[in-house]
Order: sequence, then C-alpha cells, then structure tokens
Amino acid sequence: MKRTTTKLADGRELIYYDLDDCADRDVLDRRALEPVESQSELRLDRATGDWVAIASHRQGRTHLPPTDACPLCPSGEGRHSEIPTTEYEVVVFENRFPSLAGRVGRCEVVCFTSEHAKSFAELTERRARLVLDAWTDRTEQLASFPGIEQVYCFENRGAEIGVTLAHPHGQVYAFPFVPPRTAKMAAVADTHRAATGRNLFEDLLAEARAATSRVVLAGEHWTAFVPYAARWPYEVHLYPHRRVPDLTRLSEAERAEFPGIYLELLRRFDRLFPRVAPAPQAPTPYISAWHQAPRTGGRELALHLELFTVRRTADKLKYLAGVESGMESFVNDVAPEAAAQRLREVAS
Amino acid sequence: MKRTTTKLADGRELIYYDLDDCADRDVLDRRALEPVESQSELRLDRATGDWVAIASHRQGRTHLPPTDACPLCPSGEGRHSEIPTTEYEVVVFENRFPSLAGRVGRCEVVCFTSEHAKSFAELTERRARLVLDAWTDRTEQLASFPGIEQVYCFENRGAEIGVTLAHPHGQVYAFPFVPPRTAKMAAVADTHRAATGRNLFEDLLAEARAATSRVVLAGEHWTAFVPYAARWPYEVHLYPHRRVPDLTRLSEAERAEFPGIYLELLRRFDRLFPRVAPAPQAPTPYISAWHQAPRTGGRELALHLELFTVRRTADKLKYLAGVESGMESFVNDVAPEAAAQRLREVAS
Repeated sequence: MKRTTTKLADGRELIYYDLDDCADRDVLDRRALEPVESQSELRLDRATGDWVAIASHRQGRTHLPPTDACPLCPSGEGRHSEIPTTEYEVVVFENRFPSLAGRVGRCEVVCFTSEHAKSFAELTERRARLVLDAWTDRTEQLASFPGIEQVYCFENRGAEIGVTLAHPHGQVYAFPFVPPRTAKMAAVADTHRAATGRNLFEDLLAEARAATSRVVLAGEHWTAFVPYAARWPYEVHLYPHRRVPDLTRLSEAERAEFPGIYLELLRRFDRLFPRVAPAPQAPTPYISAWHQAPRTGGRELALHLELFTVRRTADKLKYLAGVESGMESFVNDVAPEAAAQRLREVAS
Repeated sequence: MKRTTTKLADGRELIYYDLDDCADRDVLDRRALEPVESQSELRLDRATGDWVAIASHRQGRTHLPPTDACPLCPSGEGRHSEIPTTEYEVVVFENRFPSLAGRVGRCEVVCFTSEHAKSFAELTERRARLVLDAWTDRTEQLASFPGIEQVYCFENRGAEIGVTLAHPHGQVYAFPFVPPRTAKMAAVADTHRAATGRNLFEDLLAEARAATSRVVLAGEHWTAFVPYAARWPYEVHLYPHRRVPDLTRLSEAERAEFPGIYLELLRRFDRLFPRVAPAPQAPTPYISAWHQAPRTGGRELALHLELFTVRRTADKLKYLAGVESGMESFVNDVAPEAAAQRLREVAS
C-alpha cells in the first residue's frame, strides 16, 4: 500500500491510498478556493455531562448535488472536484464542512472508490482491504494528534439516514473527548472486570458463539452476531476472536480475512428486503461503525464493528422519536434471534 | 374535571377526561376484539447497561390509515374506532400495540381532541389545560402501579419522525426502569449537589434567565429557553420557576399559566419555516417530552418539558446517523442563541 499526502487549494490535507506502490499522485488542485472558516464550538451539556458540537457553518453544506457535480468523483474534462486526479483507488481528505475542526478535532471524508455508482458491497476483496488499511492508517495518525481522545471510522449509507452525497464514502471523526457510547461501554466493562476478573466483550463474544442462535457468520478470525439486546431491526456486531483495542493492532491473518466477511455481511443487508413493484426500494440504508478503545480509560474496550439498518420492513423505517430521542431508550420490533435467522437465510 | 374509567372490548382500560362534570360516558365498545397478546420483553444490553424493549408484535401495527379508518376518531355511523362514543374531549387508553406491557410496564395513547384535522397548537387554553390535567392524572395513577419507575408523557408530531396516526395524540410510557436520559440527568445532578450544595436545574434555569440571550418566552411562573448545549436545531426547555419533581406537584397558579405559554411555543414552532411553493412544507414536526423525577434516585430532578424539532431548514431534516446513532454524540448546525432569536421573532 502506498500513501501519498498532498494539500488541496485551501490548505486541507488530501491523502491517496494505492495498491500500486508506483502510483503517481503528483497533480495539483487548481481551484480558487477560499480558506475554510470553521466555527465549530464544543459545548458541555451540564444537564447530562455530554459534549455537543455546535457547527453552524454546516448549514450551507453541499446537499444531494447532481451526479455531474459530485465533489467525490475524480476531476475530469473541465470540472474540478475535491480530488484533483482523474482516477483514484481510496482517497481521504479533510471535510470542507467539518463538525469538528481546529482545536476541537478533525473530520475526514474517505472515498471508497472513484466509481460513483458503486457501493462498498461491490468492491473487490483487494479494494476492501485497501479501505481497511486506510482506516487503520487514519486511526494511527489521528490518534497521535494532540488532544484527540477517540478516532471513529464509520459509513452512513442511504438518503433515508440523511446521506447528502451518493458517492460511496465514509467518514472519520477524531473526537477531542470520549464520546458517550464509548464512555458508557468502557465504564460497564470496568465494572465487569472488577466483578468477574474477566473482559466484558470477550464474554459477550463467547456467549454468542456458544449459543449460536444469534450468530450470522463466522470465519477463522472473526464472528458476526446479532447482540442479545439489539436496538435496531437488523443489527450485527463483528468481533475479531482475539481481543485488540483498535485497528492498528490487528494481525495480518485477521486483516486478510476481514474483507470477505464484511463484504458478505453488506451483501446480506442488501438482500434483506424484497425490491418489488410498485415500490422498488433503494438499497438497504445502513450505518457501519468501528468502535475502538479511546486514549483515556478504555483499557477493557475491544475493537468491533457495529453494522445496523434503520429499515424494519421493505417499506417502513425505524424512527427515533419520543422514546429514543427523548429518553434514549430503545424499542426494537424485530426479535434478535429472528433477525439473525433472516441474515443467515440471505447468505450468498 | 371528570374522569370516567371504562374497558374496551378486549379488556384494555379507556379513560375519558371531561371539563363538564356531567359528561355521560356510558357507551359500550361493541367490537369483537381478540384479547391483546403482547410479547414485550425487556433485555439488558450488557455492553452499555441499558434496557431494550423487544416488541415483535408491533411490526403489524396500524400504519398511516386513511382518515375514515382513523382509530383515534370517535365512533360513528357504521364504524367503530378505539373510542366508543361519538365525541370526546380528552381520552386515554391502553395501546393495542404496546412497547411495554404486562409485567414490563404500560403504554397509553392520549387523544388530545376528537377533531382529526386539528393540532395541539390549535386547542383552546381550557382544552390544553384538560390535557395537562390528564397527563397529571396519568402520572399519579401509573406511578402507583407496582414496579413502575418512571412515567413519561410525550407527543410525537409529524410523519417526518415516524408518526403513524395523523390524529392529534400523544403517549404515556410507564417504564419499569429508569430510562437512560433520566438516569444520566439524575447522576449529574447528584454530583452537582455534592460539589456545590445547589440543585443543578435551578442553576441552569437561573443562568438562562440572567443571560436572556437564550430565553424564548417567560411568564410569571414558567420560563422557556434554548439550552446552552442544545442538541437539536430548534430546542426549547420549559421550566416552572419553582422546582417540583413532577406534574402532580404543580400549584394551581402554575397549572393555570401553563396552557397559554405552551400553546404559544407550539404556534411559534409552526411558524419557524416558510411554507412556500413549489414545496409547501407540512407543519413543523416535533417531539415534546415531559421529564419527571423517577421513583428511585431522582431527588434532584426537576420537572420540565423538552420541545424540539428535527427540521433544520424549510426543506431539510436533522438525521441521527453515524455520529448520533453510533456514538450518541450530537452535532447541531444551528447556534442556540440564533435559534432563540428566531423563536422570539415568530411570536404571536
């Protein structure tokens, strides 16, 4: 894998990741861009102890542009996108409309492929491995920045969850604080260690593998299962069998097996719901989230990926209304064992 | 206020609330209804310590029925809804598709008016007061049920947040556990008391009233303000000036002033965004949530209402994607002070 770091016209960093060690990425961004002025501000919600990012400059961000104006496609004849080259494999750059920027973190965009109409599930294993290597590299580099507490690699897919650019891409947030879900998991895992002497996530993985009714897919190094108390209609957690704190600590064997397992999970998500007339559904919307140990207080946290969809039937979504958004309490209309069975049925 | 408690054909409780002490509610539900079979199950998410309700019987619940089949309209010529009478003022009944039922709590539906096309904002002050009295009565009664830890009165409004019945209504959840947001607020308030000797919510209210830039509306007994670290584009917290733990402890003067203030807030929410061709927007979607002290461990919790919308511009919604749903961390694109100013500009 070759990494080439460059700058965009407004000073933002752009990084190419290539399988070919001889890839030439020596193209300048010739746009006349104003420097980014980010007004991100972190505010502590004293009623809950949670940080909130106030980012009012984001109201003007690019919203569902026409395909020929896609800022994530390569540049070409007469048009200049965020990526100066005419093709790329995987590219990462600083978001022009970041939620976190300057002294309060960093937001990056990860383009999974230069092909606009593809999805992650359609990548080859080699190219999916390149994305894994890019996520790993971003984790290592961003974690070394001063003040960064947590590196969060994720993909939002589908207009149903608010995705504003159709081009296949994910994001990396470098948080200057430990986000609430991480903090909660770390605290619960510490309590579990104190009570049992064992690691919580190793126990959850062992129980899921032993019971089998919630296992979706298992390899030599990874197992994907629906959690016992799943919050989402279809939710899968993917763990390496060997506990590691973050992506940088995966072994070569684990890295080699990941693409096949993850691509199969994504393909199964796309087969969950029938696409029938008169309402052929768009591909399954999903959120795919890497949970990693934070810099502070996360000794027990185990690297894992949480993949879930907000779609609960072919034509109905799960909304976060008064119970979820008001009380942070979840109601799930699909039994986890039934979800796991369905996800086994739609295997390739 | 007169309360009349009856039973629906399948044994669920239905309760009328009337301004007229002579209202006659002696009408039987003559439908042939199968008894409700709820399979709600509470599961503890051991990775976070949060309870999740698994309610797979809800997949078949009524979804956006045509107006003439609305189950919340009164019954009439040849059609039988959930309410046997031909008109009503406020009525409450047990949800036929509950998230929580049996030994794991109770879910009720609160119909605000028998007029299908109205909204809460269009109620008269007398009728809004009747709803307040119904919420108060439900709080008192449900809190007395064995095993109930928290009574939660709320309204979801708008298809944009997944409301499946257009008729103006809210819900009451009687939780058998302290929901995560309540638990978090109670813990933070305990810490604040230990550190300062003061109540956290009294401090937050006093600071908002002193600074004024985030105040939206103030009466003699209530103040509405945008919180310093608001999570939602437009979010208002409404507190009585005198701290009370729950609705049952409001004084007559506080109860009398509430309807005028709350109705004005709802009207302002409906005026936030222009309704212009070619895309006249539906009324502003919102979630309105009463936060009350739970049975256990909530000594410091102050009754207040949190009202917020997921709409961030006339034609754009705030979605809960990878950052919010994956990490429980919020990014808000509207500065709280700007939101408060806008909410003052649209006063009646």
